Amino acid sequence: MGGGGDGARKLATAVEFVHSATLLHDDVVDLSNMRRGKKAANLIWGNSASVLVGDFLFARSFTLMVETGDIQVLDILSRAACVIAEGEVMQLAAANDAETTRERYMDIIAAKTAALFSAAGKAGAVVAGRPGAEATALETYGRELGLAFQLVDDALDYGGLSATMGKNAGDDFREGKVTLPLVFAREAGDESERTFWRRVISGERTDDDFHRAVALIRRHDGIALTLQAARDHAARAKTALEILPANAYREALADLPDFVVERAY
Amino acid sequence: MGGGGDGARKLATAVEFVHSATLLHDDVVDLSNMRRGKKAANLIWGNSASVLVGDFLFARSFTLMVETGDIQVLDILSRAACVIAEGEVMQLAAANDAETTRERYMDIIAAKTAALFSAAGKAGAVVAGRPGAEATALETYGRELGLAFQLVDDALDYGGLSATMGKNAGDDFREGKVTLPLVFAREAGDESERTFWRRVISGERTDDDFHRAVALIRRHDGIALTLQAARDHAARAKTALEILPANAYREALADLPDFVVERAY
Repeated sequence: MGGGGDGARKLATAVEFVHSATLLHDDVVDLSNMRRGKKAANLIWGNSASVLVGDFLFARSFTLMVETGDIQVLDILSRAACVIAEGEVMQLAAANDAETTRERYMDIIAAKTAALFSAAGKAGAVVAGRPGAEATALETYGRELGLAFQLVDDALDYGGLSATMGKNAGDDFREGKVTLPLVFAREAGDESERTFWRRVISGERTDDDFHRAVALIRRHDGIALTLQAARDHAARAKTALEILPANAYREALADLPDFVVERAY
Repeated sequence: MGGGGDGARKLATAVEFVHSATLLHDDVVDLSNMRRGKKAANLIWGNSASVLVGDFLFARSFTLMVETGDIQVLDILSRAACVIAEGEVMQLAAANDAETTRERYMDIIAAKTAALFSAAGKAGAVVAGRPGAEATALETYGRELGLAFQLVDDALDYGGLSATMGKNAGDDFREGKVTLPLVFAREAGDESERTFWRRVISGERTDDDFHRAVALIRRHDGIALTLQAARDHAARAKTALEILPANAYREALADLPDFVVERAY
């Protein structure tokens, strides 16, 4: 534990509470069945409990931040909470829109996922009293790591590179979410493929549609290209760490981007 | 507008955003159809949009509070947000529990409703730089006003004192919520009435059950007793104002408790 002490622990808890709150609400919004290999909370305790307990965790995260007494940290994390919510709304608005571009997709994941990683990195440096350049470096590290994480997650939802699917794949497709593997395939596809994408993204989707979607994405290297983008962001995350003092903490941070991209293989 | 200026306006907006966020989430939790005489947001835009836009308003309220730069105000309002969420969870846990006591009911409405009124009163005094005794007086005023408001609301849900119902009554009953009019009737009822309450609160409820519930509540003066409790709290709210300087602002505040209880007649 670095210079932050008690304040750092409170902030770490606050970030984890914000994250848990968004997961509880996401599972209600996405009608999810599974979370981390287990039955989702909304299926066990109902949507009401998920919404209200998420609200409680969100509120409790703010009291923890207030306890640190650091207005700059409050500024960083409260803004991140706004950006996350905006990202979730953007994602909802983009659902079922087959014309979603790569830029729009990146804007959505930067907001819904990378903003919290990035705010956590920056706030950690601030609460520890580190120089502004280190706060900026950790902000960049967090953003790039968050982007890499989400890109891998979205590649895994089409089964990753392996033929056998290690998790409950196809959730994004079933929800009409347009993620990067699909964007690559749609952009490279011919007119009949684009007609297919328009139909399945804006309308009803069958299991057969999902299998055809996976086949088209593989044909156009959608998963490999997405994982390449993830590796690029992971590399940028590691580069951002270079200005930090070389020690065991920096090494631990440097391992994370590798871990994030390796889980896809 | 008093001494708070820009800070006071930001806080007022923050309180309104917290309130709107809780209404959006409440309507998802309660499966409501109506809100302030209009179609509820979840029916128009769906549960997902209500959950996510509620989250955004909640987060945005915190950035507004942070912009005031006043850590004491942040402390007051972030704690209130926790208490509100706890109150909503308590209410969910008490639903369908026919044995809910008056004390438990009062704990629930103190948390889910009165905490925000009370925090708004106190934070207003703090941001305006008023003495601690005035902050405490406005905290008390807010709590008592909030309790009066909720008691009236719960009396109106059984039609208030008039035979004709001016609003969509019976929502609480249909949701298995045990509110004060019902608690009074159950406590005063004989064994056959208690059997009725146990059945309808813990199980299925028909329209006939609702009509019998209203009849039993009237027989035992449940609505009149609830409105008397509301008047008591409204009177305490007005008494709390006495230490404030006598001016147009105090008069406006003193009108509110009257307005709140009079809407029931």
